[in-house]
Amino acid sequence: MTPEQILQNSKELWATCIPHLSVDNVVFGFHDTQLKVLLLQVNEHDQWLLPGGYVRKNENVNNAVKRVLKERTGVDDIFLHQFATFGDVNRSEAFFDGYPDDLWHKQRFISTSYYALVDYTKVVPVLDEFSLASEWINVDSLPNMMMDHRQILDTALAVLREQLVYKPIGVNLLPEEFTLTELQRLYEAILGVKLNRGNFYRKIMKYDILVKLNSTRSGGAHRSPDLYKFDEDKYNASLKSYSW
Amino acid sequence: MTPEQILQNSKELWATCIPHLSVDNVVFGFHDTQLKVLLLQVNEHDQWLLPGGYVRKNENVNNAVKRVLKERTGVDDIFLHQFATFGDVNRSEAFFDGYPDDLWHKQRFISTSYYALVDYTKVVPVLDEFSLASEWINVDSLPNMMMDHRQILDTALAVLREQLVYKPIGVNLLPEEFTLTELQRLYEAILGVKLNRGNFYRKIMKYDILVKLNSTRSGGAHRSPDLYKFDEDKYNASLKSYSW
Repeated sequence: MTPEQILQNSKELWATCIPHLSVDNVVFGFHDTQLKVLLLQVNEHDQWLLPGGYVRKNENVNNAVKRVLKERTGVDDIFLHQFATFGDVNRSEAFFDGYPDDLWHKQRFISTSYYALVDYTKVVPVLDEFSLASEWINVDSLPNMMMDHRQILDTALAVLREQLVYKPIGVNLLPEEFTLTELQRLYEAILGVKLNRGNFYRKIMKYDILVKLNSTRSGGAHRSPDLYKFDEDKYNASLKSYSW
Repeated sequence: MTPEQILQNSKELWATCIPHLSVDNVVFGFHDTQLKVLLLQVNEHDQWLLPGGYVRKNENVNNAVKRVLKERTGVDDIFLHQFATFGDVNRSEAFFDGYPDDLWHKQRFISTSYYALVDYTKVVPVLDEFSLASEWINVDSLPNMMMDHRQILDTALAVLREQLVYKPIGVNLLPEEFTLTELQRLYEAILGVKLNRGNFYRKIMKYDILVKLNSTRSGGAHRSPDLYKFDEDKYNASLKSYSW
């Protein structure tokens, strides 16, 4: 955007949005045994941001985050989980040196952050007017991220790992039919470690959320592995039924 | 406060604090087999609030919440955990009808909320200038709460229950030395259900965080029960070591 456009944008944001509050999204996808996250490249210096934006004056924060994700990535209708709010002073970088002090973008912002688990195959990133690129990037080879967005991403991943201890995961991240090995690879990608096959099998079976299908994965020289799908009712129940 | 004081207060808050952002605290304590929460009575109509306040312009949100708790309850130096941000429109009630629209208190506020687990015996509520009473109240007999503060409290309790599935609890909520029955009563108070004694014993022992003391609880007609304390290192390690 030109300086004139930035000043105009600032004016519009003061008129329509809640100052000092932003939302940021950590969108995870799984592909080819890799956990990926959707990032925006903001300039030619290999600097990246999480897709984020602002909350309108008459809009619930939980709705703003969906609208922002739609506007900045083209991703629609996905379930976002709020996981933390980042409120340290000096979160911003000096992006707007030289602009007036009352520029919207120069204010201090507190970020309420959400994560989402999406079907990688169903999300085609769309470029917005602020970004040079919108890409899926492996979580273990992240580029240079601006502000505290690396910390936000790391926190999302830590929360996800913690929830994996007592909740199953996989719906939205795997295709509808999958092998046990594919499910294990997903767990390994999130946890960042290799898991023992036997232990994984025993633990995942305890949840009683899988349905074995009568078909197998065809193709390849080896014996075709069994295919499974999630029992949606049991899966959803297990998300809520953790008990002491 | 008088209307003049409220207008003056508004002016000061606009000058010193971040508009539209508040913090609220859910402070849990355990006493006499009951889980209690610290609430403030705001007027004579049996209407109560969580202790909350605002964030200064040059203050981290995580620090604001400690200052606010100190100011409004006299409670100092306790560890607060952020658990959620509440951002729906219309969270406020019409407290300030008749005041100008630019009154600080009439704006829309987003609340970043924290919970704390404290030693009931060490916290003596102090009354602030805004409240009629500051009291520990049983979570199963809550009074009429204003705004969405009942929802905030319920969410804190749900998060606490969820964390109990994979993390131990007890440090700060129990006295230094305690019996297994007292620990079981704490779990029951948080979960809101009775637990089987044998199951509880097996599960708590798996954490390997208790040290059996050579002393017993004296007094009473029955055989004195063994006393335990937490092994602090193992306790802290178990908070982080959940693994798949």
